[in-house]
Amino acid sequence: MTVSRRAVLGMVGAGAAVVGAGAAATVATRSPAVASDTYPFYGPHQSGILTPAQDRLHFAAFDVTTTDRAALVALLQRWTAAAEQMTRGVAVGAAAVPYDSPPEDTGEALDLPPAGLTITFGFGASLFDRRFGLQRQRPAALVDLPHFPGDDLDPNRSNGDLCVQACSNDPQVAVHAIRNLSRLAFGAASVRWSQLGYGRTSATSTAQLTPRNLFGFKDGTANVKAEDPTSNAAVWVQPQDGPDWMVDGSYLVARRIRMTIETWDRASLREQEAVIGRTKQHGAPLSGGGEFDAPDFDLPGRDGQPVIPFNSHVAMSHPDRNNGAVMLRRGYNFVDGNDPLGRLDAGLFFLAYQRDPRTSFIPVQAQLARGDALSEYIEHVGSALFAIPAGFAPGEYVGQRLLQA
Amino acid sequence: MTVSRRAVLGMVGAGAAVVGAGAAATVATRSPAVASDTYPFYGPHQSGILTPAQDRLHFAAFDVTTTDRAALVALLQRWTAAAEQMTRGVAVGAAAVPYDSPPEDTGEALDLPPAGLTITFGFGASLFDRRFGLQRQRPAALVDLPHFPGDDLDPNRSNGDLCVQACSNDPQVAVHAIRNLSRLAFGAASVRWSQLGYGRTSATSTAQLTPRNLFGFKDGTANVKAEDPTSNAAVWVQPQDGPDWMVDGSYLVARRIRMTIETWDRASLREQEAVIGRTKQHGAPLSGGGEFDAPDFDLPGRDGQPVIPFNSHVAMSHPDRNNGAVMLRRGYNFVDGNDPLGRLDAGLFFLAYQRDPRTSFIPVQAQLARGDALSEYIEHVGSALFAIPAGFAPGEYVGQRLLQA
Repeated sequence: MTVSRRAVLGMVGAGAAVVGAGAAATVATRSPAVASDTYPFYGPHQSGILTPAQDRLHFAAFDVTTTDRAALVALLQRWTAAAEQMTRGVAVGAAAVPYDSPPEDTGEALDLPPAGLTITFGFGASLFDRRFGLQRQRPAALVDLPHFPGDDLDPNRSNGDLCVQACSNDPQVAVHAIRNLSRLAFGAASVRWSQLGYGRTSATSTAQLTPRNLFGFKDGTANVKAEDPTSNAAVWVQPQDGPDWMVDGSYLVARRIRMTIETWDRASLREQEAVIGRTKQHGAPLSGGGEFDAPDFDLPGRDGQPVIPFNSHVAMSHPDRNNGAVMLRRGYNFVDGNDPLGRLDAGLFFLAYQRDPRTSFIPVQAQLARGDALSEYIEHVGSALFAIPAGFAPGEYVGQRLLQA
Repeated sequence: MTVSRRAVLGMVGAGAAVVGAGAAATVATRSPAVASDTYPFYGPHQSGILTPAQDRLHFAAFDVTTTDRAALVALLQRWTAAAEQMTRGVAVGAAAVPYDSPPEDTGEALDLPPAGLTITFGFGASLFDRRFGLQRQRPAALVDLPHFPGDDLDPNRSNGDLCVQACSNDPQVAVHAIRNLSRLAFGAASVRWSQLGYGRTSATSTAQLTPRNLFGFKDGTANVKAEDPTSNAAVWVQPQDGPDWMVDGSYLVARRIRMTIETWDRASLREQEAVIGRTKQHGAPLSGGGEFDAPDFDLPGRDGQPVIPFNSHVAMSHPDRNNGAVMLRRGYNFVDGNDPLGRLDAGLFFLAYQRDPRTSFIPVQAQLARGDALSEYIEHVGSALFAIPAGFAPGEYVGQRLLQA
């Protein structure tokens, strides 16, 4: 018996074509990706980074449980093959398996189009230990993140040898991807922590509207966009950066940021806007203009102080105050039920790609943790940094340049 | 400053109109509801029951923390007013609030259309105690659910005085609804437990395709559909059932069913299909035909035994084996990260509406818990039963007929 997403899709082909045409009209409010979209799996860079941010996320960090380098290579080969199939909207594995064997694909995405699925792989610092002889290949930029003031990190929500970011416009497609990759890892790696994000918080393309975070504010207005002429240099490791296997890769910072939204909700609109430095309704800088107008940090208000407070989030995080440091933000809102006090366990799963965290995330976060007015309403509870290797060509597997280096 | 979803929507009106027209084309694969859809808030029945199942869910159960009946009434009045606004896509509260007060609406759905939002309220058995003098109004059908074999219920995921089911085709809209209702409950009720569902598992309209659950099978093929001539009598409390305040209401069973998907994934396709009684790819009964053909439970296979095993899920749950008992299923897939062993904390958040649980859910579940082959792969970890009062007219608040009875 054949279990093939392509076969199933063929049967509803007429309907699927209609979807593709009609769904394009949703660009204005949500994401430029439509249900039938596919993004390239092969190329100089991995997809899921400069790709227009899809609406849904399933992210997982893994501990490698084998100490056999060949088994690690085999896992990465299995993952590469399966991810290539899933991003095409095809079921994982062989087209036909014996009826008395478990299906190779778990099946819950059988009828679903690719829905813009991208799967992005990364390596944590802990992978570069003696187990696999990779110590000398550890990039200098793959540091251990420092402790920032206010951090309250849960080790069970932090770090990991490997990571997989699955983004899609259909949550079932993203969940299916992580589930099948977890299954293929059996005996070689197991999930250390995972996070679902139900809605993107960043636009990564000028074609996307700026979404709102759980504080009710537009978030990431000034984010690096794929169309920006500077985006390549901000995101991708350059030849002079090294090591060779990381060229055309990137570094991903993942932070689980709990928002104390009940406290925030009791703050006045004046306080909320002063903390952010933008208006709530339109996302315009408090210095005036529209959402995309540059903030004027010197414009004085009636009291002679800047109308955009010095310690506001927009001021503290602005590149002008951070030696020009920029990151490609790609975070997601999350709600994981509630805590024992009945407060929503909710916030921002911050994801940011950058050429070198030592000159972008780390100094920016050090400044925010010290002085950002927003710090009063948030808490960082999970943290990880991953090296995201370059893309690859057909026949290559993810990380091959590292493991053959 | 005015914070009005309608005002904001007005500004993107041209784009939104395009969405409405275009998104209709997605009916074929997902839900008949489009982003700009609204469902009526007033009427003889609450919405969110026979309404075509939306794609996303946020559900919350509350403990009432006040013992003042007037404060309970005031809460239900606030909830009714806010729910009416949100289902229209309008921000909660007054159109304008002082700049030095907290915004009445939390804002994260400001730019979003109603996205088919429905908000459905219910009352748990514990509400009918001495605190509010409601003991004599407790419906006979609002029983304490019995213990079923295999139940492993977490009290922190079970029961509650009140419940709110928010369904929408945009998860941020559903989350926004529960968050704002939780906020309006401050001082009168607090969240006891909550559950996000990322994808519907049931069709409740013949216009919807049957979705797949996390076992990879189409689920709820034989579900009661709104268009079925029997649906009214299966779902709504009739005048002869009583009490008066429940007529045109319903009863909601909520069960958090953890699926041990790692075990399931190791079962052969033959075993999986025998457990369910249907084919995995097409959802057809093992006795032949297509998805919507009636199963033939007597058709013998080569070994002389029925091709649809007696203990298969489709056989054990079929109305013919349950004195004709039917329910309107409206459940959702959930994934809440992973457990400490790296297994996905995932499964089905089972929601089922019915006229009387004593003749539908309870006997059906008693039979399934004893004999369903699927029981080996699932575990019920949360449970609740709520009385869902009838709909209401403008000027009325939810539960008014109960509290004035």
